[in-house]
Amino acid sequence: MDVMLKPEILDPQGQAILAALPRLDVSGIAGVRQGKRFELEVDGDADADVLARIDQLAASLLANPVIEDYVVRVEPPQPAQASPAEANAVRAEPTT
Amino acid sequence: MDVMLKPEILDPQGQAILAALPRLDVSGIAGVRQGKRFELEVDGDADADVLARIDQLAASLLANPVIEDYVVRVEPPQPAQASPAEANAVRAEPTT
Repeated sequence: MDVMLKPEILDPQGQAILAALPRLDVSGIAGVRQGKRFELEVDGDADADVLARIDQLAASLLANPVIEDYVVRVEPPQPAQASPAEANAVRAEPTT
Repeated sequence: MDVMLKPEILDPQGQAILAALPRLDVSGIAGVRQGKRFELEVDGDADADVLARIDQLAASLLANPVIEDYVVRVEPPQPAQASPAEANAVRAEPTT
């Protein structure tokens, strides 16, 4: 689940990162927003019932709906031990 | 870019969330890990050169490679104003 500040809410953390980029000689970045990511491991399948509970959990505990948007994604279970080649990888991901 | 603590590193934030779930009558969640998400907006296309710079940025500024793993994903630009129907949506996403 990804929780990000709504676009109209000022993000001082992201702005601080953006301001630090020139000092690191990194160019070509127009904007940075920082948010939170929660990885929830569910027992069994992530069916509609589980997703409804997670959605409620997101709205009540993990995100503040007044200032934050959240997106719940279902990802297949990850292997217990990722290979070093897979960690820290750059990958493109199809999105809708 | 998603930055998560490595699996072998203790995650007190995630454990606190997990411990709070029974009080909220949410069951079926076996594990919670909390991490950070950075959304970077790039000028122009996210080509290999830009991705290499972002990868370096992740390793030097945004993540601590000693205790954290990071994954850089390329997503298409989002519309300036998402419709309310799209925000806070539950969606399944294909991953590799």
